[in-house]
Amino acid sequence: MSKEFYINNLPEEGSFTDFYMVRAVSLKLGSNGKVYLDMNLGDSSGEINGKKWDVSPEEEASFSKIKEGDLVKVRASVNEWNGTKQLRIGRIRKYDPDSDKLDVSDYVKAAPEKGTDMFNYVLERASAIGDEGLRKMAVKFLQDNRDRLLYYPGAMRNHHAEMSGLLYHIKRMLMMGIRACEVYTNLDRDWIVCGVILHDMEKLNEIESTELGVSPGYSFEGKMLGHIAQGVKAVELMAREVGLEEEKKIMLEHMILSHHYEPEFGSPVKPVFPEAEMLHYLDMMDAKMFDFEDALFNVEPGNFSERVRTLDGRMLYKPTFKE
Amino acid sequence: MSKEFYINNLPEEGSFTDFYMVRAVSLKLGSNGKVYLDMNLGDSSGEINGKKWDVSPEEEASFSKIKEGDLVKVRASVNEWNGTKQLRIGRIRKYDPDSDKLDVSDYVKAAPEKGTDMFNYVLERASAIGDEGLRKMAVKFLQDNRDRLLYYPGAMRNHHAEMSGLLYHIKRMLMMGIRACEVYTNLDRDWIVCGVILHDMEKLNEIESTELGVSPGYSFEGKMLGHIAQGVKAVELMAREVGLEEEKKIMLEHMILSHHYEPEFGSPVKPVFPEAEMLHYLDMMDAKMFDFEDALFNVEPGNFSERVRTLDGRMLYKPTFKE
Amino acid sequence: MSKEFYINNLPEEGSFTDFYMVRAVSLKLGSNGKVYLDMNLGDSSGEINGKKWDVSPEEEASFSKIKEGDLVKVRASVNEWNGTKQLRIGRIRKYDPDSDKLDVSDYVKAAPEKGTDMFNYVLERASAIGDEGLRKMAVKFLQDNRDRLLYYPGAMRNHHAEMSGLLYHIKRMLMMGIRACEVYTNLDRDWIVCGVILHDMEKLNEIESTELGVSPGYSFEGKMLGHIAQGVKAVELMAREVGLEEEKKIMLEHMILSHHYEPEFGSPVKPVFPEAEMLHYLDMMDAKMFDFEDALFNVEPGNFSERVRTLDGRMLYKPTFKE
Amino acid sequence: MSKEFYINNLPEEGSFTDFYMVRAVSLKLGSNGKVYLDMNLGDSSGEINGKKWDVSPEEEASFSKIKEGDLVKVRASVNEWNGTKQLRIGRIRKYDPDSDKLDVSDYVKAAPEKGTDMFNYVLERASAIGDEGLRKMAVKFLQDNRDRLLYYPGAMRNHHAEMSGLLYHIKRMLMMGIRACEVYTNLDRDWIVCGVILHDMEKLNEIESTELGVSPGYSFEGKMLGHIAQGVKAVELMAREVGLEEEKKIMLEHMILSHHYEPEFGSPVKPVFPEAEMLHYLDMMDAKMFDFEDALFNVEPGNFSERVRTLDGRMLYKPTFKE
Amino acid sequence: MSKEFYINNLPEEGSFTDFYMVRAVSLKLGSNGKVYLDMNLGDSSGEINGKKWDVSPEEEASFSKIKEGDLVKVRASVNEWNGTKQLRIGRIRKYDPDSDKLDVSDYVKAAPEKGTDMFNYVLERASAIGDEGLRKMAVKFLQDNRDRLLYYPGAMRNHHAEMSGLLYHIKRMLMMGIRACEVYTNLDRDWIVCGVILHDMEKLNEIESTELGVSPGYSFEGKMLGHIAQGVKAVELMAREVGLEEEKKIMLEHMILSHHYEPEFGSPVKPVFPEAEMLHYLDMMDAKMFDFEDALFNVEPGNFSERVRTLDGRMLYKPTFKE
Amino acid sequence: MSKEFYINNLPEEGSFTDFYMVRAVSLKLGSNGKVYLDMNLGDSSGEINGKKWDVSPEEEASFSKIKEGDLVKVRASVNEWNGTKQLRIGRIRKYDPDSDKLDVSDYVKAAPEKGTDMFNYVLERASAIGDEGLRKMAVKFLQDNRDRLLYYPGAMRNHHAEMSGLLYHIKRMLMMGIRACEVYTNLDRDWIVCGVILHDMEKLNEIESTELGVSPGYSFEGKMLGHIAQGVKAVELMAREVGLEEEKKIMLEHMILSHHYEPEFGSPVKPVFPEAEMLHYLDMMDAKMFDFEDALFNVEPGNFSERVRTLDGRMLYKPTFKE
Repeated sequence: MSKEFYINNLPEEGSFTDFYMVRAVSLKLGSNGKVYLDMNLGDSSGEINGKKWDVSPEEEASFSKIKEGDLVKVRASVNEWNGTKQLRIGRIRKYDPDSDKLDVSDYVKAAPEKGTDMFNYVLERASAIGDEGLRKMAVKFLQDNRDRLLYYPGAMRNHHAEMSGLLYHIKRMLMMGIRACEVYTNLDRDWIVCGVILHDMEKLNEIESTELGVSPGYSFEGKMLGHIAQGVKAVELMAREVGLEEEKKIMLEHMILSHHYEPEFGSPVKPVFPEAEMLHYLDMMDAKMFDFEDALFNVEPGNFSERVRTLDGRMLYKPTFKE
Repeated sequence: MSKEFYINNLPEEGSFTDFYMVRAVSLKLGSNGKVYLDMNLGDSSGEINGKKWDVSPEEEASFSKIKEGDLVKVRASVNEWNGTKQLRIGRIRKYDPDSDKLDVSDYVKAAPEKGTDMFNYVLERASAIGDEGLRKMAVKFLQDNRDRLLYYPGAMRNHHAEMSGLLYHIKRMLMMGIRACEVYTNLDRDWIVCGVILHDMEKLNEIESTELGVSPGYSFEGKMLGHIAQGVKAVELMAREVGLEEEKKIMLEHMILSHHYEPEFGSPVKPVFPEAEMLHYLDMMDAKMFDFEDALFNVEPGNFSERVRTLDGRMLYKPTFKE
Repeated sequence: MSKEFYINNLPEEGSFTDFYMVRAVSLKLGSNGKVYLDMNLGDSSGEINGKKWDVSPEEEASFSKIKEGDLVKVRASVNEWNGTKQLRIGRIRKYDPDSDKLDVSDYVKAAPEKGTDMFNYVLERASAIGDEGLRKMAVKFLQDNRDRLLYYPGAMRNHHAEMSGLLYHIKRMLMMGIRACEVYTNLDRDWIVCGVILHDMEKLNEIESTELGVSPGYSFEGKMLGHIAQGVKAVELMAREVGLEEEKKIMLEHMILSHHYEPEFGSPVKPVFPEAEMLHYLDMMDAKMFDFEDALFNVEPGNFSERVRTLDGRMLYKPTFKE
Repeated sequence: MSKEFYINNLPEEGSFTDFYMVRAVSLKLGSNGKVYLDMNLGDSSGEINGKKWDVSPEEEASFSKIKEGDLVKVRASVNEWNGTKQLRIGRIRKYDPDSDKLDVSDYVKAAPEKGTDMFNYVLERASAIGDEGLRKMAVKFLQDNRDRLLYYPGAMRNHHAEMSGLLYHIKRMLMMGIRACEVYTNLDRDWIVCGVILHDMEKLNEIESTELGVSPGYSFEGKMLGHIAQGVKAVELMAREVGLEEEKKIMLEHMILSHHYEPEFGSPVKPVFPEAEMLHYLDMMDAKMFDFEDALFNVEPGNFSERVRTLDGRMLYKPTFKE
Repeated sequence: MSKEFYINNLPEEGSFTDFYMVRAVSLKLGSNGKVYLDMNLGDSSGEINGKKWDVSPEEEASFSKIKEGDLVKVRASVNEWNGTKQLRIGRIRKYDPDSDKLDVSDYVKAAPEKGTDMFNYVLERASAIGDEGLRKMAVKFLQDNRDRLLYYPGAMRNHHAEMSGLLYHIKRMLMMGIRACEVYTNLDRDWIVCGVILHDMEKLNEIESTELGVSPGYSFEGKMLGHIAQGVKAVELMAREVGLEEEKKIMLEHMILSHHYEPEFGSPVKPVFPEAEMLHYLDMMDAKMFDFEDALFNVEPGNFSERVRTLDGRMLYKPTFKE
Repeated sequence: MSKEFYINNLPEEGSFTDFYMVRAVSLKLGSNGKVYLDMNLGDSSGEINGKKWDVSPEEEASFSKIKEGDLVKVRASVNEWNGTKQLRIGRIRKYDPDSDKLDVSDYVKAAPEKGTDMFNYVLERASAIGDEGLRKMAVKFLQDNRDRLLYYPGAMRNHHAEMSGLLYHIKRMLMMGIRACEVYTNLDRDWIVCGVILHDMEKLNEIESTELGVSPGYSFEGKMLGHIAQGVKAVELMAREVGLEEEKKIMLEHMILSHHYEPEFGSPVKPVFPEAEMLHYLDMMDAKMFDFEDALFNVEPGNFSERVRTLDGRMLYKPTFKE
């Protein structure tokens, strides 16, 4: 069974049934004293609010088990006021992997490429690093963390917050970084490749993630330290294991420590060699291109988007001549 | 005759004679009541301070005609205290194009590629733009300004302050921008190419320049408006001439207006479509890569540079394993 | 028929009927599952929230045509909780210019003087400019834009967001500017008068406006460029038309470009001649005096206002001895 | 005897003799081991550096008594390098009021109007205040401090740092404030007049001043508290003396406390009634107009000034068409 | 009768009756057109939202007399959705001091020590000041304001917003300040003790307070000036009364004026002697320790708190090994 | 032999001989074309500039070996102009440990207590930590680094830049921290003691130091990472060695990471438990008290200091009644 009713294309009349991811959920008390279920449901095409009215005490018990990040099967119809659509939910239950048997990547927000394909691309580039120490670092990180990399998102709420988002982020930065070495011949490709692969390595331990690529929040260590400080430690430990030279170890730690560039974004130092500087821009460009694509996805040609939180509240424009 | 005594490689003993560019010059009164000439001399390898002591009243008259940006012929010897070298100048006179017949690009700070080669590369890309209106804009700008583009610097004092620096800046941004379109397929190459070519177009009228690519300062209009506001006007006028559609004209103006990104750097608006966003990063990367190369040029492997003014006072590092 | 029931003086008991401007409107789903109409209604004396409960499907269709900025005829009564008044709306329909025949300026927020009177005052000052070029610029702008100037507001939401607000802003700045020339004799009155008249000229094309002086939002060009960059372009084009000298043209453009003073408010350069500096303060003073009058309008003597958004959240004070 | 040799018009050849004010002075050891006297000399037309070489030990003793702010009689000739003029001083001694008998206001930087005339203008406006309490406050302050007001500067180094500068500042703000009440009829003239007169009252106790209007520095209290906090205290004490009502007393204190507007400029609160708001702008305008006049005084038409420290380093422009 | 049902330990089933303080209250119109009462109730253990549905017109009249800061007697039961508890209120009436006879400190948020004990500790330290002038200042302030000090909170909403909070703040700062003098022997204990006692003296006149230590808001003078400027005035007046020397008076005023340290927090000057510097840190430490204790009070070991507004939105951690 | 001629008490007439530390040194070319030696010399009482004129070529060779941080034996006399003293140096040579046999702590800037005494105090407190893991961490750090701790300064140029300065900083923070636990009983003393001891542990590897406690600069790792990131790594490695529990390890790392509090001072996270918060204030207080003592050391009662760079340019005050 494959997905039929995408959120940006729901039937205007009549009811329909399909699977969606729960993006937010709570039971609320209406001002008529009755309980209702208030949810945001999402798929790869967008997000929509839905309500189930007049929840009975028995339903309450069962609905209180539905959590953010769950897949649910929903029967609903669409209402619209002031141009805003909303679902009136009839029936709802949690997805059952045994009986429902979905290919979940059709139903959740996910990177546009297969995790395994992206992983192989990245591993290949890592294996081609000429410097032995750097190659060992990059390859070891990939091999040790293959399972989680295949589904981990790049963030909880910001850019690349989607299944396999972290890997997609690494892969496109890598593509761009390799090209940058063609133009800026003062850059050393080994450092670019290794730096890109490791720069966010501790996102894996800073945020938590379900296997659907949804992050329910930060880990204990993530809250206390953040992936930048964690990454510096992780390089230190791995470098001792693979026997990386002292100077190179500290340079790699510097790349991680400086890649957010500004103190208020978590980097206490600024890059002092060109590959570290370029790493920052590769990271920024990839984040921004993701945010632009994401925010313009459902905008009609000739229109502006809503304010985009991750882009300082800008309203983005899609030209009339874009298909 | 070609250059013999580069500033980063002057003879430690004895005197020598060669041509240098005047980077700063003034006549000063010593605290012994005598006048001396105090200069900074430069070539493509660096810059050095020099002094000519006990200037006579007749010399005063002649030396007062030497200006920043002039080429001068100098006879001098090297002194050193505390690791800082200084020239003791014996004789000095201005370069005479008729009798001295130099290929000046050997003697001044200049982009590493020939101006005409770079111009041809850029013009070729402009001519390949698919959108008719954008192509006309880019090609017209290049053709109308060919002469000055061949030698204009990119700035008075910051990145690309060198002969043909503006063209070098455009060319490398273009190389990188075209590659970015391969990775970020949501980008429209026509807009990237046209935006890169036009983004700094009014630098030609914001700063002044000698034909050696040295800017003595800002123009009247440059001081009153700045190249960003000037650029918006220039697009408006050129767009009316070539008949560019209204929407595209305003989008191009938006690209120019937003490309410095932050209000405090001169952009009152932030980019609202992806090509405008990318333009900013192409600009930043090219500026930064230039600054890094420039600042590390004379640094020995395993050492840090002096503080770099254009990079927030950072001291850059050249690894021991760099040749 | 003239206005009877002002919002700051509604009858506490019984119902009443009058015309009001719609300041905000939406159809909402109550948590009892029924639809209601939620509106903010305004006139020159203030603003009040009103609700019409239990909207039927037929009413929905008709109510969905009521937009922000419309005049509506309303029958309602007043409720009050916790000192906050609210309307319970009985009947409501849109204003019909043919049958209702109102003098709309009684019903909407408008400047306290007639548009035509203010226009004549400003035009007279423009015509009295001694410098030929500046006079042509100011007069041409006024004559070309007379129709819209008569009703355009000065802003969408900030100071002078009212019918004829832009003209009222220009007029009072002009009165103050002419007086400033008496005190600060280094100021050239021609430049003050022309600068004041043109400083916000492109507000006419940055924001849109109904003929009731309500702005539904920014134009395409307004969003992409803003009235400051638009104004620089507009001066350029008009100056070419009337044959203004180069130096004066650039000085006028500088006045417009610098009049917001701070980069974060849209001015990439700061004023460099005294008339440009004074223009900024005339603008600020007029904006602030407007905001103070507006915010204190309904405050009782001896009391503080609510926090005023446009004045950094200040709570303003009206002394006990003010009538 | 009246002044003959103004600094902006000194003879290019030969020596001359006149009186100047000492703006800075120190004895220095030349790098030839000899002592020389290094001074900045000023009059109302400008400032110039001068040096007296080869100071003997006896001269040292006498020169060490010359202080900043003294008038001195100087015999000197003019030298020039790189467009910068400098005095070579032959003889120098301190002014002797008994024998030299100058009208000092010709020799120092001073307001363009007589102190007594300005004082009378201000006192007249104070006496015309309708509100009894406010009138008593303003009149009492003026009468109690007449002597110092006649010569006090408005600052140590910033705007109005000249003889009678404080009074000139008050007078022009008053002229402008009275005019503002004509335009902004919501303003109460009594409050504007009283607020303007008292706003900087404690400058008299924050900075010290010689009777030539030169401030050698801040007082103990000025360094510890600043004139704003001092002013609040001073109003409190004077209000108790004249019996001003509580509400009015606190409003006056608020005007003083808020008139610098921004915390970083010394105002912990922002104005909350319109007269307090206007006071701030009157103060700013007057300071800025002073700085513009001052900085453009010696600039040739068609040129830019040096960077002006008190105007964020701007370079100001004097148009070609200004005489 | 003593308190039985603390908010952090309410019965999960059945209804209960007890007294609570009203933290927020309003009558609201439900979207079913019926009125309900919406309250936040608090005691020393926490705060909870409660609602009384279907308020009748007669009840409306009586409920509209319940204000923030009142004690009320409530009969209610607990509901819970999504882990958030809420009260369904049955009956509610105001506390009657005559018949209810409570020891109110059990029912409100209050400092953990008796007001009189704390007062005696502070007075004792004041009486032990060696310097006569400082001793008179500190003792006089305490004696003149004993009554209000016993119950006044330290703030309206921030740290020490509880009954006797101001005194608790002074007492713990004093304990810490005396210890600081043992370590930093350059500190003069008399100045530390006097400075701590007086630093917030005008909080008594900046905010208003009920005798339950709840502040309904700022006073007129508090809004216009703030406790720092008020404190400077108060020291001036008291110093004149007790005959404190000029230098010491100004130093005390400086301590008050500078103790918030940063302009944006209300201090136009920074401390210039060590006791003034230390006063700032004593104040900060005490505020922060209060906020940490307060925010972690109801957090379970091994968990993070909600975001704490007064601590820049941090989420605080209580370790697993804390009891 | 013990020190006789302290810099703040040099003989006004005649010459003298003693040992001083070189604070800055360079050979310069005078504008009479002769070389001279320009030095700043220091001891525990202050710093003074000195010059040796007419350096011969042989002397040049020998003087060029004198470096910042050396002890030198100097014969000199005092000159004074404008209240500034300067040394005219006759003879100068480097200190020879073999023949000169000084107790160097008399001759250099050093903490007022013996290094070994302070070390023992700190070690005793570390040994008394109740929690086994924390005790092992603190004790191990002290024992492993005893040698360097005895002389290391706390900084290169800021607070505690003196011999044994780092240990003095730790010791006084510890004294204050232990006292803070008496007042704020929510603090856990073990964490305060351990946190204080470890907070700057990697200063030992961030800056370099001679055995006289003078830091010539930052280490490679210090420049690339900084002592905060280095400290996080160091705790990680030591914690693995001593077997500290995971939660406690991360809490210690958090204390180090957060102790500078603001991102712009190097802390990417803010403290989230009370001991981490207090650590920051202990650090700040100790730094500030050091700076105040240091800056006021040579100020006369009733006077202000020069502007203090480390205290935002404040001029500090020493009251008249201070001995």
